[in-house]
Amino acid sequence: MDADPAPPRRGRRRAGEADARAAIVQAAAEEFAAAGYDGVSLRAVARRAGVDAALVHHYFADKPELFAAALELPIRPDRIVAELLAGPREVLGTSIVRALVTRFADPATRTAVLALLRTAMGHEFAGRMLRQFLLRELLQRITGALGLEDGERRAGFAASQIVGLMVARYGIRIGPLAEASDDEVVATVGPVLQWYLTGDPPPRRS
Amino acid sequence: MDADPAPPRRGRRRAGEADARAAIVQAAAEEFAAAGYDGVSLRAVARRAGVDAALVHHYFADKPELFAAALELPIRPDRIVAELLAGPREVLGTSIVRALVTRFADPATRTAVLALLRTAMGHEFAGRMLRQFLLRELLQRITGALGLEDGERRAGFAASQIVGLMVARYGIRIGPLAEASDDEVVATVGPVLQWYLTGDPPPRRS
Repeated sequence: MDADPAPPRRGRRRAGEADARAAIVQAAAEEFAAAGYDGVSLRAVARRAGVDAALVHHYFADKPELFAAALELPIRPDRIVAELLAGPREVLGTSIVRALVTRFADPATRTAVLALLRTAMGHEFAGRMLRQFLLRELLQRITGALGLEDGERRAGFAASQIVGLMVARYGIRIGPLAEASDDEVVATVGPVLQWYLTGDPPPRRS
Repeated sequence: MDADPAPPRRGRRRAGEADARAAIVQAAAEEFAAAGYDGVSLRAVARRAGVDAALVHHYFADKPELFAAALELPIRPDRIVAELLAGPREVLGTSIVRALVTRFADPATRTAVLALLRTAMGHEFAGRMLRQFLLRELLQRITGALGLEDGERRAGFAASQIVGLMVARYGIRIGPLAEASDDEVVATVGPVLQWYLTGDPPPRRS
């Protein structure tokens, strides 16, 4: 990957498509780190990369896609959430957990997401960037789909359990959680997310 | 006027004591990092510190206390859990969340615990150390108190929500979670922990 930190090289951008895309991704990473998620426009990324804004749009359909590329995320969390929200509402909780454990079976995804969480916990700018992305592209989508007055708060509590599952099962790997099967995790945590999001109570556990 | 050139005896002895304690804490930090939580004995710490084992016992009642000192944790998680488990079982979930938000109101505690989680996520040895401590001193205590066959698994799921609350509300500070009052967090997350631990279903949310 072209990680040249040199300032924009306007007249020199002739080196081919791979270079142009890499320059855009590099510029996006710098913009997101400096301005947070909300503060970044594709236009500003184009300016920093020394390319035309149309070229940014040529490679990246929208800001979440550019964000995933800049952070080297092998998944598109916003698309996963959109898919889940298009499914049946009464199994939303278990669908979310199923999507998580399935994606996290891939070590590259696991590593990238955990590194992002870890960085966000330790650096103010990275924290703000992730915070804004989560709110704008995930929580507010869920809120809109739920159509509930306190949807954003509900989505926030659900997010805490999702983050906790990532960190405790895959990050710290707390024994009983790391050893549980995917099915058991889905069956146990799914009803909790359902309760947070929709208010449907989980069954009594024996 | 006292012109004795020898340094004051009492002052020197105090400095000696502080040095011995510091040497023990330093040795403990190294032992925990090298051998994990389970692999450390107070005897091995004494050996590494070059002091008598009795001196380690003089300063530190037990391994959890030494662990908290070595990691500069301003709280004793094992004692907090013991207190909570001594309280009424039917409000265990809300009691845990109340204890967490109350302790985390202190920035020193918040910072120390989040730094520990962050390190444990990024370093294999630190991860193993925290994993073993959590299992031995927290989860297995809870399991014993619950007296349920799958208590360890239940405690593991509860731990995932507790860790998630720490990371999402205090670490990444996801908007709606960071803005929620302590009371709302206790009222919302408490029933989830109760369900994980005892199986009591939370109320239907309107």
